Amino acid sequence: MAKANAFYAQSGGVTSVINASACGVIETARQHKDVIGKVYAGRNGILGALNEELIDTSKESAKNIAGLRQTPSGAFGSCRYKLKSLQENAREYQRLLDVFEAHNIRYFFYNGGGDSQDTANKVAQFGHQSGYDLTCIGVPKTVDNDLPFTDCCPGFGSVAKYVAVSTREAALDVASMCETSTKIFVLEVMGRHAGWIAAAASLAQETNGDAPHIILLPEVPFVQTKFLQKVKQTVKDKGYCVIVASEGAQYKDGSFLADAGGKDAFGHTQLGGVAPMLAEMIKAKLGYKYHWAVADYLQRAARHIASATDVEQAYALGKAAVEFAVAGKNAVMPTIVRTSDKPYRWKIGEAKLSRVANVERKMPKNYISSDGFGVTAAGKRYLAPLISGEDYPTYKNGMPQYVTLKNELVKKKLSAKW
Amino acid sequence: MAKANAFYAQSGGVTSVINASACGVIETARQHKDVIGKVYAGRNGILGALNEELIDTSKESAKNIAGLRQTPSGAFGSCRYKLKSLQENAREYQRLLDVFEAHNIRYFFYNGGGDSQDTANKVAQFGHQSGYDLTCIGVPKTVDNDLPFTDCCPGFGSVAKYVAVSTREAALDVASMCETSTKIFVLEVMGRHAGWIAAAASLAQETNGDAPHIILLPEVPFVQTKFLQKVKQTVKDKGYCVIVASEGAQYKDGSFLADAGGKDAFGHTQLGGVAPMLAEMIKAKLGYKYHWAVADYLQRAARHIASATDVEQAYALGKAAVEFAVAGKNAVMPTIVRTSDKPYRWKIGEAKLSRVANVERKMPKNYISSDGFGVTAAGKRYLAPLISGEDYPTYKNGMPQYVTLKNELVKKKLSAKW
Repeated sequence: MAKANAFYAQSGGVTSVINASACGVIETARQHKDVIGKVYAGRNGILGALNEELIDTSKESAKNIAGLRQTPSGAFGSCRYKLKSLQENAREYQRLLDVFEAHNIRYFFYNGGGDSQDTANKVAQFGHQSGYDLTCIGVPKTVDNDLPFTDCCPGFGSVAKYVAVSTREAALDVASMCETSTKIFVLEVMGRHAGWIAAAASLAQETNGDAPHIILLPEVPFVQTKFLQKVKQTVKDKGYCVIVASEGAQYKDGSFLADAGGKDAFGHTQLGGVAPMLAEMIKAKLGYKYHWAVADYLQRAARHIASATDVEQAYALGKAAVEFAVAGKNAVMPTIVRTSDKPYRWKIGEAKLSRVANVERKMPKNYISSDGFGVTAAGKRYLAPLISGEDYPTYKNGMPQYVTLKNELVKKKLSAKW
Repeated sequence: MAKANAFYAQSGGVTSVINASACGVIETARQHKDVIGKVYAGRNGILGALNEELIDTSKESAKNIAGLRQTPSGAFGSCRYKLKSLQENAREYQRLLDVFEAHNIRYFFYNGGGDSQDTANKVAQFGHQSGYDLTCIGVPKTVDNDLPFTDCCPGFGSVAKYVAVSTREAALDVASMCETSTKIFVLEVMGRHAGWIAAAASLAQETNGDAPHIILLPEVPFVQTKFLQKVKQTVKDKGYCVIVASEGAQYKDGSFLADAGGKDAFGHTQLGGVAPMLAEMIKAKLGYKYHWAVADYLQRAARHIASATDVEQAYALGKAAVEFAVAGKNAVMPTIVRTSDKPYRWKIGEAKLSRVANVERKMPKNYISSDGFGVTAAGKRYLAPLISGEDYPTYKNGMPQYVTLKNELVKKKLSAKW
């Protein structure tokens, strides 16, 4: 009988280093050809399994697979698609097993956030119940840094570095213009429920009082009077004020600031954007000239300013996932375990998928400064090593050389379509 | 008599390489100590001269001055302040000469865009009329790339690189998610009157049909039906559509798209933002899920992804300005003269300030594709070398090491305040 194959899929919002994990999975599987046959990647994530659209990664050159390490986004396509519970839709799980069986897939590597780890766990359960021998290993990924049991999540360190660097640069710009021009700069960053990304902007501070002067976290209810008072005082003291706001900044009742807008010219609800909303609030109440930026996808795709630590960990976790599988583990996820803050040292750990699933890790209280607008020394001690080191992609003609794979699909074997 | 001193000032919106020009001016002046005494920098640009707030750059270490080359923003402060005409406000010009005379300043280096070159020219005229021996040299700077008589303007190449790289990265992100999620991504970039910055996004394209699929330039009147048709066709063909829009994108009557909004929740005119406006238009008319980003200051401050060509030219122009002065030239500005496209070769040229002043260079027609949504091969041939090469700042603890100067002010000598 042919050696068992592996299925690898990318899930949810992509990052600048999820392909580094893919690189770790594929390169390591290629080193274990005695155990693992081919690695099939799902075209557009788990949909690739349901639709029997399997990309044969064995068709890709070693050079191109190595190039994944420096290529942002999801090279095989990702998707936002959550499998329902086993009770609600066992058909989906059965379909996965049918496709896996048809292609002799006995290893399932699922690269994603909390939802995906939950799915990987359910697939493991279903395989077990069905008597189908399947090894399910999660590979953590999320810019939101909200997975439990791991020191951090691949993707986060690079967004954190992008945000810290961009904040320092923009703050210098504002500082040099504030005498006669813009006094307020608001940068909106990702983080719908947890403030990790906005908190990373604090790494732009070299000394107390440096920009960003205000960080708005979803964990701290927004109070307009307190906020405006801080803005006013900062402009008085410094001449300008730099604000970094989580897209998930919210009022005490849980409503998002970004949803507070009115109607636009077309009569539609005004586009979110907590940055323009805050800028306009400041203009209306304090009269300061402002600029604002919304980084959106630029932040999570910014492989050009990736954290070397993040890239290394993303690769290591992909590698560890395959090694776990080869060692006979199942329904687990490799994690990052911090063994030292300074110098930063870490090793690979392990968490059960059943425990990881659907737990959201928010910023701990002791990382948030007493006024709610900043990050404590403890928080910075946690964050600082995650942005450490640069891992520049190679360039040609002034542009980074990102890899495009052939993405050849395997011939379908099932007559039934999904 | 003491050797004559020089006055250097930064003007208008800062860039990621204007300090590289400052570095060129100061380092070169230090090499000509037989001719030039001290270099005084204006605190907040020309205001520093009017207010007699002169920064003594001789107090800065060679290491810190060298560090300017890798530091974005205006290290001495800049300002948005345009001197009136000689007829309207000769008092201002007289004040400049009073301050210059009090501090034995006989060289005036003005680092800015078209308005600033105009000012430098007027100061030269006024000095001449007054019989005050003053050498006025312009140093070009503007991310807008709209100065005439120079192949390009320092600051532009680095913004161009930032925009091209960011567009390629974000486009990969959208491509990997478009099957089940976001199909439209709009990036808003600077350029109120000229489309050079948006045009630079075309360098993200490796082959025909690559993202960005649509570029909106101020030079091409916006027609909604034509735009929506192109968006729809692109999504049909590619599965997604990436749009890069100049903030100055406008209708045929000259009104900005960004001004087309309604009122927000506070009853104020909706915040500009051509990106959210376009995204919402697409959602309303075609129903596609979108994301948008507004890069704002992040783009012009992004020293971390500066073009090596741009940094080199910024430095060379600062250096040339001092060499021009030492050679006895007056009322001129050093320029970049392109002598070859591929390989890119350039040398320093020279333009009279009187001719540079207040001329705005827009994108030539032959750089714009026939459908108005892209850049021709000729346009790309012009743009490509300007983003060539990387010039990374040094890093420490994961953050770029940008210099902060002491900025010690010279003791005032005039009793009169401005």
